[in-house]
Amino acid sequence: MRNLFAGIPAELPDELTETVLDAANVRIERIVSHGQASPAGFWYDQSEHEWVLVLQGAARLLFEGDAAPVEMHAGDYLEIPAHRRHRVEWTTPDEQTVWLAVFYSVG
Amino acid sequence: MRNLFAGIPAELPDELTETVLDAANVRIERIVSHGQASPAGFWYDQSEHEWVLVLQGAARLLFEGDAAPVEMHAGDYLEIPAHRRHRVEWTTPDEQTVWLAVFYSVG
Repeated sequence: MRNLFAGIPAELPDELTETVLDAANVRIERIVSHGQASPAGFWYDQSEHEWVLVLQGAARLLFEGDAAPVEMHAGDYLEIPAHRRHRVEWTTPDEQTVWLAVFYSVG
Repeated sequence: MRNLFAGIPAELPDELTETVLDAANVRIERIVSHGQASPAGFWYDQSEHEWVLVLQGAARLLFEGDAAPVEMHAGDYLEIPAHRRHRVEWTTPDEQTVWLAVFYSVG
């Protein structure tokens, strides 16, 4: 048995991504951020759908065309349809933000 | 945006199950237990694979043929292959146990 809060280095110069499940139609990743944000002008544009949950910490996610980002705290989750462009505007510098991301295709 | 720790009644005479994502190949459920266990002699025997995470609380899961259950705490996760018979032996009476279960088919 493994734990999503284990195996995280104290210092994180970059975001840490680990695949915790890799199946035919679904992939689950643990992502750990510590103050990181997406580079200026960068947008995620993913071919898969994503269901994302914040397990710890806090983050602001901006969807293209939206006036303001969505602020997420522990327990908050949302769906990001494939090709819905988005970026991470901010993650809290106060602690590590642990995300659970479930990527899946449809059909 | 929704929160996995919201909308949980203080009293739970039965386990509470809510589907938080329902897509073609994957379904995500939030399950809340408060001291409940599987009925005597009952085994889950599921046609889908399951990836299950404990978000809060504690539980003991017994797999058929194993001598002892696996005790899970916050952050612990494991995979339950389809038709791997298992039962919930115990969930802590001290607080609500919140599970995240990702069900998926392969192929």
